Amino acid sequence: MEKQIPRPTLERFPKYYQVASSFLNKYNELYISSVYLSECLSMDDSQVRRDMMYLDIGGKPRVGYNAGELRNTLAHYLGYFNLNEALLVGTGHLGKAIAAYKGFEDYGLRIIGLFDVSEEEIGKKIGKVTVQPLSKMKSFVPKHNIRIGIITTPESSAQSVVDMMIAAGIKAVWNFAPLRLLVPEDIFVQDENLAESFSFISHFMKQFEKKKTNKVIIKKIQ
Amino acid sequence: MEKQIPRPTLERFPKYYQVASSFLNKYNELYISSVYLSECLSMDDSQVRRDMMYLDIGGKPRVGYNAGELRNTLAHYLGYFNLNEALLVGTGHLGKAIAAYKGFEDYGLRIIGLFDVSEEEIGKKIGKVTVQPLSKMKSFVPKHNIRIGIITTPESSAQSVVDMMIAAGIKAVWNFAPLRLLVPEDIFVQDENLAESFSFISHFMKQFEKKKTNKVIIKKIQ
Repeated sequence: MEKQIPRPTLERFPKYYQVASSFLNKYNELYISSVYLSECLSMDDSQVRRDMMYLDIGGKPRVGYNAGELRNTLAHYLGYFNLNEALLVGTGHLGKAIAAYKGFEDYGLRIIGLFDVSEEEIGKKIGKVTVQPLSKMKSFVPKHNIRIGIITTPESSAQSVVDMMIAAGIKAVWNFAPLRLLVPEDIFVQDENLAESFSFISHFMKQFEKKKTNKVIIKKIQ
Repeated sequence: MEKQIPRPTLERFPKYYQVASSFLNKYNELYISSVYLSECLSMDDSQVRRDMMYLDIGGKPRVGYNAGELRNTLAHYLGYFNLNEALLVGTGHLGKAIAAYKGFEDYGLRIIGLFDVSEEEIGKKIGKVTVQPLSKMKSFVPKHNIRIGIITTPESSAQSVVDMMIAAGIKAVWNFAPLRLLVPEDIFVQDENLAESFSFISHFMKQFEKKKTNKVIIKKIQ
């Protein structure tokens, strides 16, 4: 039986998956060690081993994990082998960028429905999919048995869009609008906050500016 | 003196920041507890307390942290009080979406330069900024003392763009192109992998489908 995986562990799985994948592409070696994984991701190797305990995968002491098995097990846990069909509402710039992004299919995501309210957008083709009026979503979801909805609308319409999605049968929402959506407990929402990622850069810049200042001070003292 | 903060801790800081902010907006209370923080983020409260030890902020036993002080200290560590000017290369759909995104200034990011190679894009205005030919980047960086570059080009041109950025004086790169860039050691790269975030949804869907199957089996047995 699969154990309930804590969220922070789950958040690290895609990173382990990427390290294992590029390890398999780069090296002609069978085993990948927890130390190698930890160094690639600048984390504690004991944390890596704790995370691995959630996978049904046995490591060999002082050798490591079978890299191919590790990658496949992670892909299995992350659902990359399942194909997930989704729809997207809001075909502005961000919606178009996401609808046209080619990398998603490797991760099991295929966007098969596009919806917008703007007359200008309706009828446009993005890749192979034509933008439909939002009013068509209600019948589209059960017809294609879709469970995943992507929201790339402006903040002001995101809540009404998610309400419509849930009424139509959507169970998981990937939300790019910068607000916290109100949803029933059984609905899963993944918020995408781009500004949050920027934090790492602004933290780096703070350190960078400080180092520069320190150097100037040291120079002045000398 | 500030301690070196481990990356996973730093990754949690923006989340603590958001919880503390919404706590301050919602409640008329002075103190926020590590248990409250841990419950909002479904993590261990001992982990929260360990992370807090990297901040110069004292918690009161059995009461918690001063919520306002916590929020401000986190904002300080994350560099939200610094204004960071940046440039962006690649004004396709994703580039336009990011250039037009209004939420970044709250996090200290302002995009003041836009560059592309396409004749169609050059001269267009996104917000208040006009798209310039990429050849102008080299002089733009020192003139405006910019240290941050955002890459939203296709994968095929991202490496040559980052090389140009570094030659011009860029120190931190926010990379949206789906490849690992080769850069000198002193350059900071933040890779943005949208497909990685999708992992959480596909994991949820896997659990969801399994539950459904179990229910069907239970029904059949009854």
